[in-house]
Amino acid sequence: MTETGPLTPRELRAWQAFLEASHLLEEQIQRQLKSDGDLSHAEFEVLVTLHLAEGHRLRMSDLARGAAVSKSRLTYQVKQLERAGLVRRTACDSDRRAVWAELTDAGAAAVDRVRPGHRRLVRENLINVLSPADLDQLGDILARVAARLRER
Amino acid sequence: MTETGPLTPRELRAWQAFLEASHLLEEQIQRQLKSDGDLSHAEFEVLVTLHLAEGHRLRMSDLARGAAVSKSRLTYQVKQLERAGLVRRTACDSDRRAVWAELTDAGAAAVDRVRPGHRRLVRENLINVLSPADLDQLGDILARVAARLRER
Repeated sequence: MTETGPLTPRELRAWQAFLEASHLLEEQIQRQLKSDGDLSHAEFEVLVTLHLAEGHRLRMSDLARGAAVSKSRLTYQVKQLERAGLVRRTACDSDRRAVWAELTDAGAAAVDRVRPGHRRLVRENLINVLSPADLDQLGDILARVAARLRER
Repeated sequence: MTETGPLTPRELRAWQAFLEASHLLEEQIQRQLKSDGDLSHAEFEVLVTLHLAEGHRLRMSDLARGAAVSKSRLTYQVKQLERAGLVRRTACDSDRRAVWAELTDAGAAAVDRVRPGHRRLVRENLINVLSPADLDQLGDILARVAARLRER
């Protein structure tokens, strides 16, 4: 099997299931976040990552890692969120080169508004469909895939 | 644990790995398809599904299922592809209510152009990272998740 030839039936089955599950779930999530808080999924991930961080703030590079987006996309997302008043960017006293992103009060309120519906959706469509053993296997397998992708 | 309360550490680990793997891979795929053929990922899935079908054509409802997109999104994608000359919509002689989508020669050429790079990317970042047993487990688990999502 060459690197550019067709996938085997076993490979195709895993890839199709991954693709279908991720696209259908993504579509549901986008609809819920738009309807409950007028947020894109990427914007929500940025807000939630800041919400979890100490002092509701992170260096842009740490934020990119936490929110699972590339740095170039993150710059765009944060600009949009800053325009909407949900995030502000600040310089740091001790390291002038580092740019930090910080959640505003309006940003924290936006997280509180959309998170209940988001959690319900993730439970109903992923968590509650799987056994604890399934969850562990899925976590093991996809953590390796994610680590591979982060190397790029 | 309520339906809208925080995920447990085990649930969070599976969900985060799923989210990170799917978002990072999606970002790579979008970049490759844009650069090799000026296609979105959804457009590529529509073209590939038609390419695999007998006579390079499908009813719109069957195409939505095969390409893992909702019918409302499919209508939009097919319009874009029709404008680019890659797909044409036709009525069926035997069933006038059904609308079919059909791949044009230019559409088939577009699939041939982007598919080698797409397959290489899926292999390098997903297939080759996993053992055959992992692939089977991943396929089993996510086929159940996809089936749940298709019920909606």
